Parts: sequence; structure tokens; C-alpha cells
Amino acid sequence: MQQAPRITLAPGGPDFSRVVLGLWRLAEWQRTPAQRLLLVEQAIALGVTTIDQADIYGGYTSEALFGEALALSPGLRQQLQIVSKCGIRLVHPNRPAHGVKHYDTDRAHLIASVEHSLRMMGTDYLDLLLIHRPDPLMDADEVADAFDQLRRDGKVRYFGASNFTPTQFALLAARFPLVTNQVELSLLHLPPLDDGTLDQAQQLRCAPMIWSALGGGRLFSDDSAQVRRVRAKLAQIAASRGVTPAVIAYAWILRHPSHPLVLTGSGRITAIAEAVAATRIVLTREEWFALWCASRGSEVA
Amino acid sequence: MQQAPRITLAPGGPDFSRVVLGLWRLAEWQRTPAQRLLLVEQAIALGVTTIDQADIYGGYTSEALFGEALALSPGLRQQLQIVSKCGIRLVHPNRPAHGVKHYDTDRAHLIASVEHSLRMMGTDYLDLLLIHRPDPLMDADEVADAFDQLRRDGKVRYFGASNFTPTQFALLAARFPLVTNQVELSLLHLPPLDDGTLDQAQQLRCAPMIWSALGGGRLFSDDSAQVRRVRAKLAQIAASRGVTPAVIAYAWILRHPSHPLVLTGSGRITAIAEAVAATRIVLTREEWFALWCASRGSEVA
Amino acid sequence: MQQAPRITLAPGGPDFSRVVLGLWRLAEWQRTPAQRLLLVEQAIALGVTTIDQADIYGGYTSEALFGEALALSPGLRQQLQIVSKCGIRLVHPNRPAHGVKHYDTDRAHLIASVEHSLRMMGTDYLDLLLIHRPDPLMDADEVADAFDQLRRDGKVRYFGASNFTPTQFALLAARFPLVTNQVELSLLHLPPLDDGTLDQAQQLRCAPMIWSALGGGRLFSDDSAQVRRVRAKLAQIAASRGVTPAVIAYAWILRHPSHPLVLTGSGRITAIAEAVAATRIVLTREEWFALWCASRGSEVA
Repeated sequence: MQQAPRITLAPGGPDFSRVVLGLWRLAEWQRTPAQRLLLVEQAIALGVTTIDQADIYGGYTSEALFGEALALSPGLRQQLQIVSKCGIRLVHPNRPAHGVKHYDTDRAHLIASVEHSLRMMGTDYLDLLLIHRPDPLMDADEVADAFDQLRRDGKVRYFGASNFTPTQFALLAARFPLVTNQVELSLLHLPPLDDGTLDQAQQLRCAPMIWSALGGGRLFSDDSAQVRRVRAKLAQIAASRGVTPAVIAYAWILRHPSHPLVLTGSGRITAIAEAVAATRIVLTREEWFALWCASRGSEVA
Repeated sequence: MQQAPRITLAPGGPDFSRVVLGLWRLAEWQRTPAQRLLLVEQAIALGVTTIDQADIYGGYTSEALFGEALALSPGLRQQLQIVSKCGIRLVHPNRPAHGVKHYDTDRAHLIASVEHSLRMMGTDYLDLLLIHRPDPLMDADEVADAFDQLRRDGKVRYFGASNFTPTQFALLAARFPLVTNQVELSLLHLPPLDDGTLDQAQQLRCAPMIWSALGGGRLFSDDSAQVRRVRAKLAQIAASRGVTPAVIAYAWILRHPSHPLVLTGSGRITAIAEAVAATRIVLTREEWFALWCASRGSEVA
Repeated sequence: MQQAPRITLAPGGPDFSRVVLGLWRLAEWQRTPAQRLLLVEQAIALGVTTIDQADIYGGYTSEALFGEALALSPGLRQQLQIVSKCGIRLVHPNRPAHGVKHYDTDRAHLIASVEHSLRMMGTDYLDLLLIHRPDPLMDADEVADAFDQLRRDGKVRYFGASNFTPTQFALLAARFPLVTNQVELSLLHLPPLDDGTLDQAQQLRCAPMIWSALGGGRLFSDDSAQVRRVRAKLAQIAASRGVTPAVIAYAWILRHPSHPLVLTGSGRITAIAEAVAATRIVLTREEWFALWCASRGSEVA
């Protein structure tokens, strides 16, 4: 069976599987703890040992659902690398005190959020903590101070950001070492290729983590002219290589020289296996550019 | 009486009042020298000791009007920090040689402009000189040379820029130490929050100076959907805190982690006192984000 | 006869003529080898000793056409500085293997492309090699490795980029010393003045090379409102200085403090002489800003 390769996120950074099991929809899957455990075990069998979580997923329930599964298998934690996020406060029945959806990167909130994540997942530490969204009120010194405290207490091993612009990332990285920026990239979302996001990732040697690699599913459901162009080209390349179009969509991202990791979003192990299969495919430049041009609707300049 | 707190603009930089008396409309106020002196003395009583000027204000008349007031009170100068600007050449009856409004950051113009400002205000030095607008023809080495000369001659103590983009500021800062970028920010002008301007200010620890904090008055006069949304939210928060909406509008800016200074634009001491009152208020995150969302017309992502 | 001055492109960089003979239309000119040689000799007489080429010009024919001319005059090579580019693969009868127009900055392609350029032009080395367009798949380490190999083999003396954004340029410059970014700038293409491109050039002291200085000829042929405004102002300034409008259009670019070099695009020596004449003219600030405002359709802020 094919196994996902591993990658070091940044110089001195952690060693993760190149394919990451994203659990933001875990609550929607309506599974028993044993079924959730099975998915994780099947992922591990594919070499997908890195788990992506956030405090807010599933309306603040996803981490606990994952923790229930972990509790069924003592020793499983050591085989995993767990990523979680904080910094968003949702208006939600599970957080009745919140009156307005907002961001919060205050020291107290970051530390309390991590401690809550650890309790929910039944683990002593996170491998990686990300600030979920750029907070216009982020005090970089205060975040660095919170990160430092979390690291010294052994609660979090590495730190990063998500959805940060290059200047936001540069600001926080100037105060504390970051290992990744988790950003959206897909054949339906091209801006990181030329807005500086991936240039910065490559310059700092911080491998980006990519969310929504399949456009949140739109790649295989929408009927716009753009999506139809991309889908036709994916189908053609997939057929020539004897794989599914989703494999090619993941391979298109993995081809980038910033060495991106890809998150999956599905609860079906066959869908996760498609991302793993993509790690064995290196698209030719003509294939890669044909897809890029299909998305843009124009040839290169 | 409440007093404006003080702040150091940058490491090794000057110590200014957090609220700055902006005099760009001084000529419009049609006051006698004694009345102008009274306003400055009332401001000082509020801790507002920093004055914001520019060569061009009032069609090249504002500095002289201020100088007339200063001359009435020997010794007042030592209680003040005076900021002025140069680098714009207006087409104006007071400058008959100018045929086209343009920018000028040539060494000779910068030095001559400062010397003129000093004569008009009757002072020996400026505490801070700002390049008023980014000049596409700015030779950073030449500006640095002019700054160095002005500093060595004791005519200007610190230097900065105004309305510079992050790359323009980085260019000049690479040649000469700058302490601030004076930029527009208000609930009606949000770009600096995510275009890199305030990220850079925070990263370089250069406290920004903020002009048009009340949107040039539009915040309380316009009738657009955006302004009505913002005004309603300001009114609600102001009522709950027992202050005026303008106090909240200033507090919204002062909440930013880059430690902004705010300029006032009014000649009424009660209006200036509103900015001073704002320095005692720390908006909650929910208040701050509710205002941000009211301006944007959408909740956070 | 006026001669083009010389300029060092970057600290430790090469010494080029400020006016550069651009040969991207050489194939269109339909000239004999002797006629091509004559043009080069006439350019040299004007001090225009730097030649701008690219592998793809003329559908992969321009370098060979130039090489035929060079071969007629042994010893001419030493008087010239030759710039070429690589990194684009055209779909063209001369490259039947190409199925999709795309970029290629792989090590093997860069080295093979340079070796082909050298053979076509009959020379042992390039003075400067540029990556023709930003390649989203550029691995900066791999490009740096290729550059290093080319330099050690004596095949290329200096390196740069073309049409790179500031973050793309910063990425590659972090891995290998670059001496220039060749970009488009003209009275009909203003973005580099405020998108950070020329700020970066000035900050890094890398003189930019400017292509399409006359808007690809549109400056003297189009009938849009913008072009008519610019043309009227060019005509007025040209008349007052006793030169042609094209001289003023070049002088407008040469006035920039980043010390740009300008490429010509014409095969007429009189047109090249206009660029050379521009190097003797320093526009006043009022002239420069009047042209900028004519292009923008508004006065400065």
C-alpha cells in the first residue's frame, strides 16, 4: 500500500505527513467513537499521521469527538501529530457569552483555548498551534509571550499562522519562530501563487499547509465555465495517468516548489487515499500549466 | 482633569502626547493671536503638548499664524513638541512660481522648507519633520542626506513620513532612521488595517500618527448606509459608556496594538477633550469588532 | 555626436550603456546580415553597446540573426554587453515538442537555453541572463544552482529577472545575487511607480531595465483620451526644449531616482538616437509631474 511521505515543516521544525487528515467536518459525519477511531487507524495505515483540528470546528465539538476516539486506543497519540487552532470566537450556543463573532489573540484567550483543546482531545500537548485568522488587534509581542509560555509548559511544540498575508506573517515571525502558514490554494483559488504568500513560504523555507485543495468540493459539483474548463482538463490528465481527477487536483498543489502539505476534508478513507496517491505523481510542467491556464481562462503571458 | 498620556514614538524616538493638536484648519478659524494662544494653552492643560503643522496648511499661512501666538508667550515653546511637514508644492497665490501642483523631496527644497517653517513659527527647531506624501521621484539617498544635515544643524530632531506605503517607508528607513508614518485611519477608512501599513508600524515599533480619525467629519454628517451603520453602533456604545460617539471613534483607533497617536482637527477645546477622554477607554474586543463590522457591512470571516 | 552614458547596474555589477539596443523585433526588420551589422555599429557609435535579446524573440530566430551579423566582424563582441533571457517555452514550429505555452525555470532548461543562445549568437558568454517571466513553479534553490553553474563555467557573468513582483524578486535575490529587474514602465504603464517595484530597485540599488518605454508605439498611434492628453503634454515640452516628443518620453523614465536603463525597440538608428538624446535632458519636476498627471487624468493628492 502506498504511504504518504513525510516532510519537515521548516528548518528545526516538526516532521509531518505530507497528507494531513482534516477533521473540520468530523461532527457532520455522525459516527460512533469506534468508527472515528477506525478512520484514524486507516489514515495511519496510509502514512497520514498528522491531524488538523481547531477549537471551533463543529461548533466547538470536533476536538471532543476526536478525543473520544483517541481514548479508545491508549498509545495511539504517540503515532500522531496533532495540529489545532485558536483565535476565533464564534457566536454559538456552546459559547453563550459571545455576542459578536470576532477574533481574539489576547494571551489569556490563547492559553485558555489551548488548555481547553488539550482537555477535549485528552492529550498533553499539541504538535502545532496556529492562529486561525489574522486579527487586526493582534499584539505580536503578546502572542509571542503566550507562545513562549505554552512551549515552556510543554503544551505546544511548534507554532504557526493560518490565512495570514505576507506582512502579517512577517510581523509575527519577527517576534517568534513560525513553521507554517496554513492557507487556501486550489485550482479554484489561485491568489497565493502571485500575491507573495508562497514566495514568502519558499523564502523562509516554511512549508505551507493547504486547505480546500478541492475548492471545498466545488471542483466536482459546480457548473461554472471555469470549473468546467478545469474539470475537463483534470479528466484528460487523470485518464492518461490512470488515476482519478481528484488525485490530479492534489498533485497540482503538491507540485509547487514551496513543498506544500495538503489537508483532506473527507471522512471516506478512499478520498484520503487519493491525496496519498497524489504524492507519487509529479505533474509535467505542461500538465501543470494547462490546468493553471484552464482555471485562469487564458494562456501564460 | 483628564490628561493625555505620553508615548515614545520608536525606540530612541521622541516622547509625544498621545493626542496631537492638528492645526491644518487654523487659518479657517479666523482667530486673533491671543485666541490662538488660548487654544494652545488649553490643549497643554489637557496634556496635549504635541502640535501638527505643515508648510502648506492654510495656503502656506498656518505656521505663521501659530508663530504669532507662540510669540505672545516666551517659554511656551519648551512645553511643546512641534511636528511639521514638507514635500508638496501647491499652486497658490502665496507661491506664484509654482505652475503645477507637485511633490518635491529634493535636498534643497527640504532644507529651504524647514528653514521657512522655523522662521514662520519663530522657533529654532522642529521636534519631528515628515515627508508629506510619497514622491515618485524621491531619491532616498538625497533625502537621507538632507535629514542628516538638518539634524546636525540642530534644526530637526526626528524624522518620518506621511501617507507612505510599506515599500516606500522601507526604502527611506533603509537609508535613515524614521520614527513614524502619519497615515489616515478611521471607521470610514480601513485599508491600513490589512494593507501592511500597521503591520509594518508594529514590526518596526514605530507608533503611527493617525489623521482624519473622524473621517474629516463625515462620520457625523454623511447619510450613506455605511456611515449610518457606524453611527448607530457608535451611539450605542457611547450611551453604554456615558461618553460621546466621537470619544468612541477615537478609542476605536487607540485600541490598535501599534500604539497610534491621534490628531484632532477642531479648534474647539471640547472637541480636543473628547480625544483625550478616549485615551482612558479601552474598548472590549466585541465593541471594536462590532464597529469594524458595521463599517465593512459584513461579519468577520 | 552625443553618446549614451554608462551605468553600473548594482554594487559589484556590470557596466552597461544607459540606452540598450532591444532586438525583439529583429526578425521583422527583414535585413541582410550586413545591414544588421551596420545597425549595431551605428549603435556603438552612439555609445549604445548593450544588446537585449531573448531565446524566444522572433520565434527563436532573433539570436541567430544577430549572431550572423556578429560573425561578419571579429572583435565586435568585446565592445558589446549582451543580455539574453530564458524561461518561457513557446508553442512554435521551431519547437515542435511544446504542446502548451508555459514557463520553465528548471535547472536543465536554463542551462540548455543559455548554451543554445551562446551557439546562436556565436559567443562564449552572456554578460547578463534574465529569467524572462515569473514562474509560479520556480524553485529558487534550483535556479540559484543553475546560475552558479553557469557562472562557474564562464557562460554567464551576471544574473537578474524580468517582470518579477517585489516578493518574487526578493525570493530569488535571497538565494543568488541579482543585478536588475527588467520591467515595463512608460507614460502608459505607471504601476511600477507605486506597487513597490521601483522602491525595491532603489532600496537594493539594482538599476531597473525598462521595456516598452514608448508603450509599444501606442504613445504615438492610439487615440484614447489618455494618450491624447499625454501626447499633447509631450508635444508642448518637446517644443519648448527643441527635441522630439519621443525624446521627452524617454527622459521622463530616465528621470527616476532608481537610475533606469531604457531599451529601444526600433531598427532605425534615428529612433535609437532619440533615446540617447534623452540622456542629456533632465526634466524639471514640473515637467515630470505634468506628464504623470496627464497620464493619470488627475492632479497629485
